[in-house]
Amino acid sequence: MHRHGWVRSVRSQKKALFLDVNDGSSLRSLQVVADPGLAHRRLTFGSAVEISGSLEKSLHEKQNVELQATEVLVVGECDPLNFPFKVKERHGLEYIRQFPHLRCKTNTFSSLLRVRSAATSAIHSFFKENGFVHIHTPIITSNDCEGAGEIFHVEHEGRGNKGDQDEPYFFSVPAFLTVSGQLHLEVMAGAFPCVYTFGPTFRAENSQSRRHLAEFYMVEAEISFIRSLEDLMVVMENLFKATTERILAECPHDIELYHKHVAPGHRDSLLSMLKNKFKVITYTEAINILTHSSQSFAFKVEWGNDLQTEHENYLVKHCGNVPVFVINYPYELKPFYARDNSDQPEHTVAAVDLLVPGIGELFGGSLREEQQEMLRARLARAGMEDAYQWYLELRQFGSVPHGGFGMGFERYLQCVLGVHNIKDVIPFPRFSHSCLL
Amino acid sequence: MHRHGWVRSVRSQKKALFLDVNDGSSLRSLQVVADPGLAHRRLTFGSAVEISGSLEKSLHEKQNVELQATEVLVVGECDPLNFPFKVKERHGLEYIRQFPHLRCKTNTFSSLLRVRSAATSAIHSFFKENGFVHIHTPIITSNDCEGAGEIFHVEHEGRGNKGDQDEPYFFSVPAFLTVSGQLHLEVMAGAFPCVYTFGPTFRAENSQSRRHLAEFYMVEAEISFIRSLEDLMVVMENLFKATTERILAECPHDIELYHKHVAPGHRDSLLSMLKNKFKVITYTEAINILTHSSQSFAFKVEWGNDLQTEHENYLVKHCGNVPVFVINYPYELKPFYARDNSDQPEHTVAAVDLLVPGIGELFGGSLREEQQEMLRARLARAGMEDAYQWYLELRQFGSVPHGGFGMGFERYLQCVLGVHNIKDVIPFPRFSHSCLL
Repeated sequence: MHRHGWVRSVRSQKKALFLDVNDGSSLRSLQVVADPGLAHRRLTFGSAVEISGSLEKSLHEKQNVELQATEVLVVGECDPLNFPFKVKERHGLEYIRQFPHLRCKTNTFSSLLRVRSAATSAIHSFFKENGFVHIHTPIITSNDCEGAGEIFHVEHEGRGNKGDQDEPYFFSVPAFLTVSGQLHLEVMAGAFPCVYTFGPTFRAENSQSRRHLAEFYMVEAEISFIRSLEDLMVVMENLFKATTERILAECPHDIELYHKHVAPGHRDSLLSMLKNKFKVITYTEAINILTHSSQSFAFKVEWGNDLQTEHENYLVKHCGNVPVFVINYPYELKPFYARDNSDQPEHTVAAVDLLVPGIGELFGGSLREEQQEMLRARLARAGMEDAYQWYLELRQFGSVPHGGFGMGFERYLQCVLGVHNIKDVIPFPRFSHSCLL
Repeated sequence: MHRHGWVRSVRSQKKALFLDVNDGSSLRSLQVVADPGLAHRRLTFGSAVEISGSLEKSLHEKQNVELQATEVLVVGECDPLNFPFKVKERHGLEYIRQFPHLRCKTNTFSSLLRVRSAATSAIHSFFKENGFVHIHTPIITSNDCEGAGEIFHVEHEGRGNKGDQDEPYFFSVPAFLTVSGQLHLEVMAGAFPCVYTFGPTFRAENSQSRRHLAEFYMVEAEISFIRSLEDLMVVMENLFKATTERILAECPHDIELYHKHVAPGHRDSLLSMLKNKFKVITYTEAINILTHSSQSFAFKVEWGNDLQTEHENYLVKHCGNVPVFVINYPYELKPFYARDNSDQPEHTVAAVDLLVPGIGELFGGSLREEQQEMLRARLARAGMEDAYQWYLELRQFGSVPHGGFGMGFERYLQCVLGVHNIKDVIPFPRFSHSCLL
């Protein structure tokens, strides 16, 4: 029997040498018992070992089995002076974040990565089981309007501003990193019952806050032949609950580490989200709730203004600390593609945001304007008719009522694990002034 | 009973109106039988319909059931004059490629997208079942060396060359689009038994050939505690075979469309790849085979030169038209991270390429140089020691023997379906001079 992994602890006693060896497949380490003569100065915390021996029933209550070693081979030393992590110490998330090439060697971050992997898989399973076709929407795009100023340009070295004047662009046109796969998913909504994408999206926000990344992952879905926000909200709620239940079942120890040591008390809050039906209020009701609250807000509460984080937090608390769908936003607040509710005097669109405790907005979605003339008029008023000619054409050839949503994947992980800073739930965080490795 | 979809054909007869309606969930359409009075000038090829009625056993042999309609509602007309696709016509791949926002409405391309989705899912399943942790390696990176000149720069608008002199870069350093997730996966190989990534990668190759895209998908895996190329090759072969068998079972009709109409005869070639064990030859043996062949090559055959497409094709044919692993390449041909075989007089590294019929190189992989001093010496000779300090440090803290590989996902789909041009297996192809939508 051969085992391998990284040494988590070494206890050298008179009669035996005890090692905890972790191979990364779970949080649990294997206890190795060896002859004290096998102790070696290279056998230190963090070193990589290969062990031969026999698996025996353990007499200790902490584990079922232990490996009685006949040979312990150190295949990779771990320089104890320079290794930033110390044995038996629980380093803070902020501390380990300084070592992007080594932080996966801590229990905390290896648990995060297993949970992230399981959540990714659970999301794919949810969509597959519900008949969605997975679409790889493009990363490089020639659409720029949606991202406003917060967009990254992509160009081949030697081209662009300083390049050949005859051919300034690699793609013949300016190209950008995608801010959302929605419009490309809508292309597919013209041929499939339901589609989704799950990939990286980008915002060049000049912020180093705990809430923003320049590169983050979005789960986006688009559903054809639906006419009401209820049809969207049921998918959003099911996605959240099914994914969370699956990873709670699949990674109990990894999630427990977070609920015990990183965010004590968070587990109850999460279980209450799963147990209760999500609330639904209209934007207009939200404004009324905020207007009648005794709390004073830094940002003015007025019909027509966007909801700020302080408002979102208040609404979630007001509704009993469960996730809250806010629906039917003011027409002028939402992008051109949101479907006109054609109501008055308060003109709204069929858009929905899901607010969750501790995070704020986790999902955003809307029915899409599938009526060609309504869409054309709105694009024309915004001076965007030419740029979105292809998007208008989708409404000319077998257009269907449809809608969709997007969920920020890192925010989802923060919500499940109770992690405060978004940089601690992604393997290699990219943000303003930082692109390590 | 309600059904919806897009009209594939309309036959108006005296006693009945027949419609074929496809909802995108499969290649198969539902036959709808309606009162001829329900015929309508808006009910044309490509229009979107919602139908009420009852599902009845069909008397026709082509289908089991048909929908006896009581109501047919056209929810989205399809302008027949401007719609680029015509009823009952099989348009060529090159023709439909001109309409990136509409081509999913053809049978050919909707089949492709379902196969692509199923293959994506099958790949994730393979890795999950084999204990791999899924890692989102970064898209934006500050590593540039590997991509040589064929790399895309990323910068926030208003920054970079023409920007603020005090802070010319959004990330404080030049940033690029990733050409491979390998080095970041190797970080994770220091804490997990096996990891993989499956995401977009980028090359700014100034080529409009049928073989190149500027944005394409790679499946990359890294396995810890392995010491031989055999351990890698078994995973590569299993990944290819398991994925292919799964999608053949899951999408038989979609794949049949390609094997019947796009690449007749391809099915036998594919089945023979699945049935036979992949061949293994060394690079040195490959050079011998080529040297002794009666064929004349445009590129010189000589130990130390890279294999060209013509050589790859010859080798695959020589080995009986099955996939061929070529192993142990010349030291100077492969990148710095390939593990030194320390042999002589012909100095090689433990690298492997998998060549497949019709495509050439489908996988590339190697054992990685895990020995710190060997790696440091090679990086120093190449003048890259500073840039890869973090990569060297991985060898300082619990380094393990490891290796990995990458598979081009679009090439894989071409190989399964027999599609000639890589632009026809990705939803939104990006290449030199083209970034539509």
